[in-house]
Amino acid sequence: MMATSKKAVVVIGAGDATGGAIARRFAREGYIACVTRRHPEKLTPLVEQIHSEGGEAYAFGSDARKEEAMVSLFQEIEANIAPVEAAIFNIGANVKFDITDTTARVYQKVWEMACFAGFLMGREAAKVMLPRERGSIFFTGATASLRGRAGYAAFSGAKHALRALAQSMAKELAPKGLHVAQLIVDGAIDTEFIRESFPDRYKLKEVDGIVNPEHIADTYWMLHQQPRDAWTHELDLRPWMESW
Amino acid sequence: MMATSKKAVVVIGAGDATGGAIARRFAREGYIACVTRRHPEKLTPLVEQIHSEGGEAYAFGSDARKEEAMVSLFQEIEANIAPVEAAIFNIGANVKFDITDTTARVYQKVWEMACFAGFLMGREAAKVMLPRERGSIFFTGATASLRGRAGYAAFSGAKHALRALAQSMAKELAPKGLHVAQLIVDGAIDTEFIRESFPDRYKLKEVDGIVNPEHIADTYWMLHQQPRDAWTHELDLRPWMESW
Amino acid sequence: MMATSKKAVVVIGAGDATGGAIARRFAREGYIACVTRRHPEKLTPLVEQIHSEGGEAYAFGSDARKEEAMVSLFQEIEANIAPVEAAIFNIGANVKFDITDTTARVYQKVWEMACFAGFLMGREAAKVMLPRERGSIFFTGATASLRGRAGYAAFSGAKHALRALAQSMAKELAPKGLHVAQLIVDGAIDTEFIRESFPDRYKLKEVDGIVNPEHIADTYWMLHQQPRDAWTHELDLRPWMESW
Amino acid sequence: MMATSKKAVVVIGAGDATGGAIARRFAREGYIACVTRRHPEKLTPLVEQIHSEGGEAYAFGSDARKEEAMVSLFQEIEANIAPVEAAIFNIGANVKFDITDTTARVYQKVWEMACFAGFLMGREAAKVMLPRERGSIFFTGATASLRGRAGYAAFSGAKHALRALAQSMAKELAPKGLHVAQLIVDGAIDTEFIRESFPDRYKLKEVDGIVNPEHIADTYWMLHQQPRDAWTHELDLRPWMESW
Repeated sequence: MMATSKKAVVVIGAGDATGGAIARRFAREGYIACVTRRHPEKLTPLVEQIHSEGGEAYAFGSDARKEEAMVSLFQEIEANIAPVEAAIFNIGANVKFDITDTTARVYQKVWEMACFAGFLMGREAAKVMLPRERGSIFFTGATASLRGRAGYAAFSGAKHALRALAQSMAKELAPKGLHVAQLIVDGAIDTEFIRESFPDRYKLKEVDGIVNPEHIADTYWMLHQQPRDAWTHELDLRPWMESW
Repeated sequence: MMATSKKAVVVIGAGDATGGAIARRFAREGYIACVTRRHPEKLTPLVEQIHSEGGEAYAFGSDARKEEAMVSLFQEIEANIAPVEAAIFNIGANVKFDITDTTARVYQKVWEMACFAGFLMGREAAKVMLPRERGSIFFTGATASLRGRAGYAAFSGAKHALRALAQSMAKELAPKGLHVAQLIVDGAIDTEFIRESFPDRYKLKEVDGIVNPEHIADTYWMLHQQPRDAWTHELDLRPWMESW
Repeated sequence: MMATSKKAVVVIGAGDATGGAIARRFAREGYIACVTRRHPEKLTPLVEQIHSEGGEAYAFGSDARKEEAMVSLFQEIEANIAPVEAAIFNIGANVKFDITDTTARVYQKVWEMACFAGFLMGREAAKVMLPRERGSIFFTGATASLRGRAGYAAFSGAKHALRALAQSMAKELAPKGLHVAQLIVDGAIDTEFIRESFPDRYKLKEVDGIVNPEHIADTYWMLHQQPRDAWTHELDLRPWMESW
Repeated sequence: MMATSKKAVVVIGAGDATGGAIARRFAREGYIACVTRRHPEKLTPLVEQIHSEGGEAYAFGSDARKEEAMVSLFQEIEANIAPVEAAIFNIGANVKFDITDTTARVYQKVWEMACFAGFLMGREAAKVMLPRERGSIFFTGATASLRGRAGYAAFSGAKHALRALAQSMAKELAPKGLHVAQLIVDGAIDTEFIRESFPDRYKLKEVDGIVNPEHIADTYWMLHQQPRDAWTHELDLRPWMESW
């Protein structure tokens, strides 16, 4: 390991507003942001923004569903950049289909993206953190993590499995010093996707009716700062006007 | 469709005591038991037992994780045997590994067996049942369906996803006449596996401390008989002396 | 104790259709139905119906919220009628108020009826059953047992507490031979109250859209018959067309 | 209303370490701490400590289980001190009894302290906050809020009911601008009670094995600061080495 006091945060799925906000939040606190998505050139604006804010960031082209890609990602960061102090999984895969229209391909792909990739990240993060007995491993969940719903067999299946992963890892790794938590976001997030696909809903932004990604990032930072006598393993976040 | 008053039950994962008991239970009620496992020759004793009890049964060699296998299984049964009135998924895949020792292969395989195969069965069953607006689709769950646990990231992930499948399908299909339910078995079942691997626990059989597969089968039959104004979507079963 | 092979079922809250159906169901199986409500004269039609069906039944005027009333009820039945083999709590108290309109009197009264009375019944039933290491104690729940909802602070509070009672008692008493369970009814039940207050909803009866009390009674009987290696501690019942 | 920029926090159950820490935390942020317990003279050290830290505090002798007491408490604070911006309910009542040893008196008293008093506080807080469309109402929960357990029928009943209250109020009041949340503390807290009654457990304090009340207070402050597009309604807190 390098003689360094530097610390890295890994954000898997930094393509959207939320992943970007998390990376920037940790970078503002002095963490080196290691952000990934399949096509790394799309991360250039994020990396430049972090640099312009005085932070340090690296973009990685990496398919999070590939074991060897995740293994080498963590190895490379640990070897060449800094110890990973926080790893955050932020890949979504929200699709809706009637059960009879859900192809095997879709069902499997949603699981690979929203769950299997989370397992790979969680395991690789645990491997590098366990010897140091320190580190945070966080997963972004959704209402679908908690209950099934007509049309959401694939998505809620992946999210339920991700929650089981977070819980199983928390129970195993907390006594070894690692903080594993899950943040259930219930409600629309202020993203390109919502702006373009649900313009009426997006208008609720004016009255704080959709979640600001910066506030998700603040919550992740808060969790990472929790002292170990008072760790949160699961919390929800939703706009005040969201019914649930 | 044939002009028939016959009805079939499909039991996926009829290799163990539970699947066998379910098949025999429905066969005693006049259903044609269509039982599957990868190596159909291992089903010969079960089929013979059903025949000796006056029932009708067919064994299918079928890899439940393969889409084409499940599609053709349902097609064949519907075309040549009888309409499928009940489809029951009973494949388990209980493994325990530390998270860092959980290989990608194991994690994926457990999900394929305990969840993806359930999705394929559920979808194919729904396809044939929906035009008739009638039929039962049941899944066998476990405590791991409800919470994660140290060492069980893979198993509880698959079981959580299966529960999300059951719930999502129930919410979508109940208003279309199909009864989708999940039976959470909490505790050891009287199987070869428990007898050989956990002899001390197996001794509890003498005081009803492990679940009799016949009683799981009775419960499935009870669920299948429920009138549609009072359907159960989830219930638990555990021995009286099991702590929880 | 009398030299008797007779067995009693106690139904607390036998005033409505559900309590009556439960009493009649157990009476048909040879149990002596001991039914209670505050004004026992209102139980006359039920008792007469049970007699006309060849069963045995006794009506008790008893305020289930009074400790001494519940204590003496069980003492009297055990001394003069038969050992109590099953005790079923069926008092509801569904009210809806904005939180600021919920008086302390209402909040307390709902709890006394829907929860405290259940505690008294459960405790007295446990007292007489524990020496025999045998018996069923069942509670009727509702969706409000599982989650809060705007306007239902009082009702969901009482129902949540009743569920905690059922769970705590089950965990304590199952290893001592008593079967404690809870039946979550989600949806309207075919009662006078629904017929008069929600006529549109009541029309759904024609398509099995509301729960038939006889089927709740069948479910309680099924639970009471479960062998102790496969006890259910919680199950839900809802009409096929009920969304959840 | 007074012309004032002052803000009050009400802490019901400020007798123990946690209530005191919450009051001091909000006082450090400029809030006037209004702390209550039945015997107000016992609050003198807390009030003096807050004064010595430069804060403002008032002690109230008030039986939180009495409707008129809670009504006049809020009226007095609103009239004479400052608008209540946050109200925090922190009364516990952890007792353990076999079900047959649980007296009606104990069962009722635990509910009155741990739940009914919470209802009264919540309702009165809602009354004064609703016209301002602003304010936080928080409740302290425990593992017993989530599941029953042998010996804990009374305690888990009260805590379940309190959770239903928090959820029902959150769903009703969030769209009206009030933030209602619940903090589930799982594990021992650093209090006199634990130090004296469970000395072995208390020793875990050296390795952060019990919860520091200051960190509960920090979490309440964090919740109170959340922007309304990202409100948490429930979170857990437990020491790293606590099994769950």
